[in-house]
Amino acid sequence: MQSRYFIINDFPQGTPERELFELQEAELSDLAEGEVRIRNTWLSVDPYMRGRMSGVKTYIDPFVIGEPLEGAAVGEVIESRDSRLAVGDKVRHMAGWRDIAQLAGDQAEPLPSIDVPEQAYLGVLGMPGMTAWTGLNRIAEMRDGDNVLVSAASGAVGSLAVQLAKAKGGTVVGIAGASEKLEWLESHGIKAVSYRDRDTQQLTEALKAACPEGFDVYYENVGGVCLEAALNTLRTGGRIAVCGMIAHYNAEQPAPGPSNLAMLLIQRLRMQGFIIFDHWADYGRFLEEVGPRVAKGEIDYAETVEEGLERTPDAFLALFEGANTGKMLVRL
Amino acid sequence: MQSRYFIINDFPQGTPERELFELQEAELSDLAEGEVRIRNTWLSVDPYMRGRMSGVKTYIDPFVIGEPLEGAAVGEVIESRDSRLAVGDKVRHMAGWRDIAQLAGDQAEPLPSIDVPEQAYLGVLGMPGMTAWTGLNRIAEMRDGDNVLVSAASGAVGSLAVQLAKAKGGTVVGIAGASEKLEWLESHGIKAVSYRDRDTQQLTEALKAACPEGFDVYYENVGGVCLEAALNTLRTGGRIAVCGMIAHYNAEQPAPGPSNLAMLLIQRLRMQGFIIFDHWADYGRFLEEVGPRVAKGEIDYAETVEEGLERTPDAFLALFEGANTGKMLVRL
Repeated sequence: MQSRYFIINDFPQGTPERELFELQEAELSDLAEGEVRIRNTWLSVDPYMRGRMSGVKTYIDPFVIGEPLEGAAVGEVIESRDSRLAVGDKVRHMAGWRDIAQLAGDQAEPLPSIDVPEQAYLGVLGMPGMTAWTGLNRIAEMRDGDNVLVSAASGAVGSLAVQLAKAKGGTVVGIAGASEKLEWLESHGIKAVSYRDRDTQQLTEALKAACPEGFDVYYENVGGVCLEAALNTLRTGGRIAVCGMIAHYNAEQPAPGPSNLAMLLIQRLRMQGFIIFDHWADYGRFLEEVGPRVAKGEIDYAETVEEGLERTPDAFLALFEGANTGKMLVRL
Repeated sequence: MQSRYFIINDFPQGTPERELFELQEAELSDLAEGEVRIRNTWLSVDPYMRGRMSGVKTYIDPFVIGEPLEGAAVGEVIESRDSRLAVGDKVRHMAGWRDIAQLAGDQAEPLPSIDVPEQAYLGVLGMPGMTAWTGLNRIAEMRDGDNVLVSAASGAVGSLAVQLAKAKGGTVVGIAGASEKLEWLESHGIKAVSYRDRDTQQLTEALKAACPEGFDVYYENVGGVCLEAALNTLRTGGRIAVCGMIAHYNAEQPAPGPSNLAMLLIQRLRMQGFIIFDHWADYGRFLEEVGPRVAKGEIDYAETVEEGLERTPDAFLALFEGANTGKMLVRL
């Protein structure tokens, strides 16, 4: 059986070009004892993957040039030599960017039995959802009534973070760009503020207008002007959960950091970076808390879907143009 | 009775000039019920005072133009209408920058009975010492064996921070400038690294050479290049206690922040600002732990002393030239 998969042919500088990605095909080896073969139905593309294209080991190994790329995927077992997995089982695993995956059975996790579409396990009930929940609850230690600011608030992580925060009762403000994203936020009871055409001072003023009392928590996905404006609008004892800084992922030169870091001192702020892989032991607890609310429709999750394996690089590159509302997915 | 005191005649931009400070004299009012009169013997000058000269309320009210400046001082009660304080008592209070202070008795605190010189309560056993101890233990949650990096390591706060850290058993590296400061550090078993004539990359390399395993804790007093280099050399799970950023206090324009804040994410770092006034409830515990060690001579505290009230502004301004080793004091 053949597997079709994407590779990268270089470590890109700056924003990757479409030509970086090549679709290749290879005959799979016979299934070894303990292995399973999976027909992928949904692939995830995520901003963090850009970091794996740098050739540098950070908290995760870099992609290998010429080897199949990796990422979260959902699929159905079509052949199994692992007694724990049967043909027809729906699983989640990290052998994405391809149509047919073959891997050790213990690398594939059966989908939980919550009544949600299977692709939800790549988004609202997958890594992005878990990231939103962990950042707010474990890192920023959000409390009832906290005023919460979220950047990239209509993205895969941000769109859940604003809803989880909203349920705690305080004022929740989301920063986004395009008007349909701002509308999506407002329709969920979130105060939406656009970063477009605003410098730090202008964004600071817009945030102060949206939440004059100031924020207790800032959920950071962006960096740059958003971070500076957030530092200006956090109140004493505020906490920043640093989930990502997408504004900088394609930068060719180091960009200066916020010029107002002294706010950390003046307002006694805490700023903490985290990587979701360190917190995966909490996944069961997250699922127990958030899963039923998703199943009941209390949490709305937006998806942006590209069709077909061939479109996977396009879906990935669109993340950096802010083209997605909610989770960016590829349906095979 | 006359009191001689310093005022500022303006809110300075950039580095203050000597002419900003004016010595004035006024007749004290008769002592009211509950008040005490104190002859100051030692005055403290500290970098944080620069923030009170900006005209802006931060965590503390700005100085008032034309009114006596304030700061920590030690002195002897010479007249008392507070039953808790008798003539001859040694006290610490905040009515510094003057020779004779008159204030409500409950604003003056009798000196503890530890066998140390009285000016130690302005330094190693005062606000700077308490700041070093709190930053390491409460904010950075230093553990036994942690590798610790301290900037401005021969200053009032840093010189105690390195010694408290050293007692925990890990590698301790101090960043300083002048050669006598580097020697002072080395003579106390601290690895000393100079920031002079080094850019971020060069300082990063020097720190990596001094502690190849990387740091668990960074005690931040400086900002700028020191912070960037520290971010490059902290290891996973590292904690930064932000006590001050003296490099920026006299800046007329906002300076760019560190270009490598993404290290917060990659290494899952926590960075937290603190103000010692929030933690004063712990002062008793600090004194109990550190006081006896100072009395026994286990902790060496350096002092730089200017003589005479008239020299107080000069002592203050010298802080920004790095002229002091240890605590900068004025003896009256």
